[in-house]
Amino acid sequence: MTDEDHMRAALSLARRGLGETAPNPSVGCVIVRAGRVVGRGRTATGGRPHAETEALAMAGEAARGAAAYVSLEPCAHHGQTPPCASALIEAGIARVVIASGDPDERVNGQGIAMLHGAGIEVTEGVCAAEAETVNEGFFSVVRRGRPMVTLKLATTLDGRIATRTGESQWITGEASRRAAHALRGSHDAVMVGVGTALADDPELTCRIAGFRAAPMVRVIVDSHLRTPLDGRLARDVGDDAVWILHRDGVDAARRDAFGALGVRLFEIAASDAGVDLDAGLRALGAAGITRLLVEGGGTLAAALLRADLVDHIEWFTAPLVVGGDGVASVAGFGLERLDDARRFTLAGRSACGGDVRASYRRQI
Amino acid sequence: MTDEDHMRAALSLARRGLGETAPNPSVGCVIVRAGRVVGRGRTATGGRPHAETEALAMAGEAARGAAAYVSLEPCAHHGQTPPCASALIEAGIARVVIASGDPDERVNGQGIAMLHGAGIEVTEGVCAAEAETVNEGFFSVVRRGRPMVTLKLATTLDGRIATRTGESQWITGEASRRAAHALRGSHDAVMVGVGTALADDPELTCRIAGFRAAPMVRVIVDSHLRTPLDGRLARDVGDDAVWILHRDGVDAARRDAFGALGVRLFEIAASDAGVDLDAGLRALGAAGITRLLVEGGGTLAAALLRADLVDHIEWFTAPLVVGGDGVASVAGFGLERLDDARRFTLAGRSACGGDVRASYRRQI
Repeated sequence: MTDEDHMRAALSLARRGLGETAPNPSVGCVIVRAGRVVGRGRTATGGRPHAETEALAMAGEAARGAAAYVSLEPCAHHGQTPPCASALIEAGIARVVIASGDPDERVNGQGIAMLHGAGIEVTEGVCAAEAETVNEGFFSVVRRGRPMVTLKLATTLDGRIATRTGESQWITGEASRRAAHALRGSHDAVMVGVGTALADDPELTCRIAGFRAAPMVRVIVDSHLRTPLDGRLARDVGDDAVWILHRDGVDAARRDAFGALGVRLFEIAASDAGVDLDAGLRALGAAGITRLLVEGGGTLAAALLRADLVDHIEWFTAPLVVGGDGVASVAGFGLERLDDARRFTLAGRSACGGDVRASYRRQI
Repeated sequence: MTDEDHMRAALSLARRGLGETAPNPSVGCVIVRAGRVVGRGRTATGGRPHAETEALAMAGEAARGAAAYVSLEPCAHHGQTPPCASALIEAGIARVVIASGDPDERVNGQGIAMLHGAGIEVTEGVCAAEAETVNEGFFSVVRRGRPMVTLKLATTLDGRIATRTGESQWITGEASRRAAHALRGSHDAVMVGVGTALADDPELTCRIAGFRAAPMVRVIVDSHLRTPLDGRLARDVGDDAVWILHRDGVDAARRDAFGALGVRLFEIAASDAGVDLDAGLRALGAAGITRLLVEGGGTLAAALLRADLVDHIEWFTAPLVVGGDGVASVAGFGLERLDDARRFTLAGRSACGGDVRASYRRQI
């Protein structure tokens, strides 16, 4: 077993926690002594305890003289618990292998410095590219002040999400719908535009049994607070929160009514085109969202693409054709030149029942 | 080697000739004696000689007592050459294995009857499903009076073929464009609507070196003969023919001008919506086209889908988004209920450079 093998195991652990640890990163830790794995851990649901704490607890005395593989630099700051770098030192770990540094200003090399200072051998950058992907949501908030954004669309072959009369259930098949639902599980929050909230009255929860332990934040972009007070979202604020991004000057009584239902409201700068989505995403990042799944509709998708705020696309295509008078999956955004089109890179594709699923990431 | 193995070899030979043998079917023949392949042949470019003739010529005296594997029932009628059933009998073939009967009324079991009459052992239906696919164009003309229709589309993720200003070159990448070009090689004719002829001034030829020996028939659906007389298609009638499907009552002088350029004109019944495409396809079938590749644009694609005349779709999707004000790949066709949408079955998918290619066939 090489360093890479152990680090990939740590990254797999980290990946399982995606969507459940925000605002903390999901980290994986594997402790290896004399070639044998003696401890494993990942950031717990809710963000604590950290991966190192879990893995050290499992390893116990076996941690002494062992190597720890951690997908992100151990933290160096005292928060609710002592820093993980101290915990590793105290447990007698002899070597720490790290996939990626933590750009958070409270860490940012200080975790590594603490380990060095204690005479621990530190190896950095093992499986760095893979770690970049696993940590993407967290890094996005630290570096750009906004969550990583995944746009999910489910359309006909000709890119429609409904017939001209608005009929949309069901375009994609059961397998695609399950896969799309599972995507919610690996994101901290789901976002829709008010048009979708009005047309579909969705729940936007992730209730596949055993699939998700953490609550889901549900976000509506709704400049004028048109979300129905008696719809499923507003009515059903419980473990799964409901947040609305709205503009200034909305009706105060309506704002109070949402507040009384437990809906969290964010007043966001706006132009004639509606809420400033960059500002909206920053507000979500500040509120702890690191991985955001956008589920449409076409107006919100177009606005995000126009503003170049989409990092990933998950596109489910069903094998039927509705024709050009059906509802477009992405509304118009005034593009004239192909060179100005938003370009993505194909990252994966698979069959989902009779549908095709293709994953894309933003071309840098 | 089983019967299936030898038949698959015969079907592979047949597949190579697709697009080059119309109006004849592309047939493959393998002759096996004592477990050894002694003859191979396929229908030659242009439709003659037939596969059996080629394979028997290669086998020579070794055909005596051998088994012949043929992807389609040997012909029984005297045309320019004696029937293949006779040729197999005269060569002393002891056993004939056939993938599929030939529904052509001049054959339709008579080839098999001739073989039986000569005391030859005949096995039918080996690899029958695969043969149905290979023979699909030919069977389509015999059974339905019209060619098999493949619709090829190359779009953005959101199903657009151009920006709102009409810019369309290039949406898909080099690999997709080559694959789309290669599709022309396996079809007898390529068809576009007049809108595409006007907008793109295409050549619609298949000139990948070594890829296609037979000429390509290029068909334009052009009710009112608006195809430019000085465009590439009309100017360049040579080995690759140009045919136009138009309605009645067109300008006689214009009709004569096209005739003088060597363009073949088909007057087709029409309604207010334009040329009756079912009648148009029947005219193409009668003129010898068995496999037709439709390359758009959106109006023709919509009309064919509405009339349920599309058997296969080859959809190339490029990883970019143009938005809902771009040009739709399929025009509107008044669909209101999803249940009435044209449904297809995913038959295959692959990456084409950074694009995704997905193949669909009509759901029966």
